[in-house]
Amino acid sequence: MLKENERIDDLDCRDLKIIQNSSWFSYGMDAVLLSNYVKMKKHSTVVDLGTGTGIIPILLYGKHNVKKIYGIEIQKKVAEMAKRSVELNDLEEKIEILNIDLKQAEEKLGNNIYNVVTSNPPYMAANDGLKNITDNKTISRHETKCTLKDVIHTANRLLKHNGRFFLVHRPNRIVDILTLLREYKLEPKSIRFVHPRVGKSPNLVLIMSVKAAKPSLEFEDPLYVYNEDGSYTDELLDIYDMERS
Amino acid sequence: MLKENERIDDLDCRDLKIIQNSSWFSYGMDAVLLSNYVKMKKHSTVVDLGTGTGIIPILLYGKHNVKKIYGIEIQKKVAEMAKRSVELNDLEEKIEILNIDLKQAEEKLGNNIYNVVTSNPPYMAANDGLKNITDNKTISRHETKCTLKDVIHTANRLLKHNGRFFLVHRPNRIVDILTLLREYKLEPKSIRFVHPRVGKSPNLVLIMSVKAAKPSLEFEDPLYVYNEDGSYTDELLDIYDMERS
Repeated sequence: MLKENERIDDLDCRDLKIIQNSSWFSYGMDAVLLSNYVKMKKHSTVVDLGTGTGIIPILLYGKHNVKKIYGIEIQKKVAEMAKRSVELNDLEEKIEILNIDLKQAEEKLGNNIYNVVTSNPPYMAANDGLKNITDNKTISRHETKCTLKDVIHTANRLLKHNGRFFLVHRPNRIVDILTLLREYKLEPKSIRFVHPRVGKSPNLVLIMSVKAAKPSLEFEDPLYVYNEDGSYTDELLDIYDMERS
Repeated sequence: MLKENERIDDLDCRDLKIIQNSSWFSYGMDAVLLSNYVKMKKHSTVVDLGTGTGIIPILLYGKHNVKKIYGIEIQKKVAEMAKRSVELNDLEEKIEILNIDLKQAEEKLGNNIYNVVTSNPPYMAANDGLKNITDNKTISRHETKCTLKDVIHTANRLLKHNGRFFLVHRPNRIVDILTLLREYKLEPKSIRFVHPRVGKSPNLVLIMSVKAAKPSLEFEDPLYVYNEDGSYTDELLDIYDMERS
């Protein structure tokens, strides 16, 4: 089941597990926060764009009574590992990992039919910093294989009218994000900033957009990760606890 | 000097004073926070769009060694009162109030020549809620006489290359704001959210944009207005103290 440098991590949620490769990109708090941020109706159909290890589909399965979740991952070896995580959890009927470019997602999955699209995409523009563009970590972190525009355009095409797009990203990209969301008719309806601690600028932003909705935006209360003493806040522990319950 | 319903308020800053009319729109904390947020070089030229009582030009004069500040106000009686505040402070050489529509500002003031533009514009779209469109408070609060687009377009026209635009607004308009700023080549470079208190969603946003700059955005640490016990935070007191010093 496991290949070189791989390990199985217990998600402490309904006995779910995930395979990760220590030399590739490991899922972070942002994937957990995004999964927690997603709200959906029962029996929803979901597509996760740039699914990586498959963490978001697996956590969403753990929290929601979903009909089907598709995870799209362009990196062949990463997608193959995510498929094995799906098998490890016996979730082949609920989660399908597709090793395709997300620009092919519409062709493969159909358009205007999904209830929910999620994405924890690469945060950095392709030209930010030195990198080896074939490296797995680079592809997961930089927009070498897909741009933010590709992600948002694809989300628009996949979602049905009034379908919801949940995105986690860096606050310093928010002008690009909000401009593109509006351009692609995914109206931002709710924004939540994540701050490392009280008094510090946010380092993550969670955004919920609704396809073809009218403009009306709400800011949710901020989420703080650490207390002053460096311990996790109660809310953050609750988010992880929910996954452990 | 004073007309019906008018009073003189002491700004506790270099003996500056302002005339306000108790039946019109009085300046609020947002104008004070915006004035405090503005950074400029010595001898800058400044235009304040929708200046109302003239509070922002007067506070900016109090804090900076400016060359000249123009305050534009479409409401005739309000502009006339602001002019009397300028006279009351003997600032006719430094501050000029113009009773014009801001869409005429470029024609009157010239284009591509100012270092700084500021605005604390009406927050609400013209169609938000019932109103009497000729009422002074309505004009100050709703986009009946100018839209956000007019304000941002005018700021772009007045500013020189690399000139700075400082805006205070409501967070729930941020998609409109950031989309328009980028459309009019005023690249958002810094955002600061103002929260009523720790843990609560922001109710004001301060944005600094630079004309024709490259995208690169920073979030400043949040500003909290009240402590848990309902008293003002030290930072807020400092902002007001600075004006009192």
